[in-house]
Amino acid sequence: MTTEEIFSQIKKKGTTLCVGLDVDYDKIPECVKAKAGSKAEAIEIFARAIVDATAPYCVAYKPNLAFFEAYGYEGIRVLENLVKYIRSKYPEIFLIADAKRGDIGNTAKMYAKTFFEQMDFDAVTVSPYMGSETVTPFLGYPGKYVIVVALSSNSSSADFQMAAQGGKPLYQVVMEKCMSISTPENMMFVVGATKADKLQEIRKFCPDNFFLVPGVGAQGGSAEEVIANGSNSKSGLLINSSRGVLYASSGEDFAEAAAKVASETARI
Amino acid sequence: MTTEEIFSQIKKKGTTLCVGLDVDYDKIPECVKAKAGSKAEAIEIFARAIVDATAPYCVAYKPNLAFFEAYGYEGIRVLENLVKYIRSKYPEIFLIADAKRGDIGNTAKMYAKTFFEQMDFDAVTVSPYMGSETVTPFLGYPGKYVIVVALSSNSSSADFQMAAQGGKPLYQVVMEKCMSISTPENMMFVVGATKADKLQEIRKFCPDNFFLVPGVGAQGGSAEEVIANGSNSKSGLLINSSRGVLYASSGEDFAEAAAKVASETARI
Repeated sequence: MTTEEIFSQIKKKGTTLCVGLDVDYDKIPECVKAKAGSKAEAIEIFARAIVDATAPYCVAYKPNLAFFEAYGYEGIRVLENLVKYIRSKYPEIFLIADAKRGDIGNTAKMYAKTFFEQMDFDAVTVSPYMGSETVTPFLGYPGKYVIVVALSSNSSSADFQMAAQGGKPLYQVVMEKCMSISTPENMMFVVGATKADKLQEIRKFCPDNFFLVPGVGAQGGSAEEVIANGSNSKSGLLINSSRGVLYASSGEDFAEAAAKVASETARI
Repeated sequence: MTTEEIFSQIKKKGTTLCVGLDVDYDKIPECVKAKAGSKAEAIEIFARAIVDATAPYCVAYKPNLAFFEAYGYEGIRVLENLVKYIRSKYPEIFLIADAKRGDIGNTAKMYAKTFFEQMDFDAVTVSPYMGSETVTPFLGYPGKYVIVVALSSNSSSADFQMAAQGGKPLYQVVMEKCMSISTPENMMFVVGATKADKLQEIRKFCPDNFFLVPGVGAQGGSAEEVIANGSNSKSGLLINSSRGVLYASSGEDFAEAAAKVASETARI
């Protein structure tokens, strides 16, 4: 998928919302659990219902690998089925594997194979601590993206991301290094919404890449501020909300409630 | 498993070797492929044969998740079976999930559940870019360890790991932060063998934790130098070799050849 195609979808749907599929069995409504034969099956039923309800109001889904892996190979089978389901029913959707992988070249190559060949994701998140080698194997797939964690939204993000190199903060060093080996057609960055004040500054040295922006909703960031400070000429934003959408209601109306929250989040 | 128990095994077997199970289908001997009905099955047969041949000559195994995930849910099923096989047949072995996960607290908690509850690993590798939150959920499991990547062995490790904070290099900042929230009974560090000159220096500020040391063999590091520069009173080292052991021969004698290389690597 090209950035132009992503932008077309953003304009058509009037939103930059990415729904994070961090499907936690313990938070799934009882009415869903009652229909399922196993925990993995409950996650599958719930995730499909959320997707069917929210697809008109978002441009991307971001399954969080941890929440599927926790159920072993059955969890991975559910994820594979979910990817196929979204691909076939909602082909316009941008599909992100939130995996935060980050390893040496020969291992990163296998991760690229996992997410771009074994499963048909459009993008995968990567943690850059081990350097540019963690990123390069993902760049050779036309129409696919690596999304590098630059400045995250969590409370301990400042532990290491603010270290300095050549007079610049580490997150900027990471972004500039990654930009030097890629194009906006294969590279995006994670920039947390809880750092909205930093977004304008980051846009100055990174005008063209899309940003995946977590931290809206449960983590306290404001989508409006992100749009005001972080947009570029092609929007350039995928604003993620996970818990705020998924668990909008714990009753029989969970899907309608998720749709309502989704339809009100990250509108442009 | 306590560090004392790991040290007992190191003394008994006379080695600090950890065999990395980066099982690449393309490198598996033809004689194994001929016996298997699928790629995942070939990986399973090969990995079990390597384990049976090398168990007397190593103290730990380190399956690399990427090499199993690349075959989808069937690959994960093979990994789950392999973990059970090693656990039941070689209960003295220390089992490391080389996963390089690193995410916010609620996600890291799910990864801990994956590797310590769903699968019975003793330890999991974590990439620290997102801060202390990536680590803490792994610390609440008695006898289990989180192994944080500090200074890696790959060619691009210096891209970001040498950034500075408070006059110290980032890898030291990472280690000191992690040490401040843990003990040597639940925390280890990845320190690459290709940085053997740095090991003495690192031992000064981190005398008690075990180091998992990749980079011996195919990546060019020397196990002898690592032992000379990085040992502490309980050895404190798990020296990893993957490709050098696994692919010692591509013929019918692959298991014997792997055993021979293992028996000569990282001896104390």
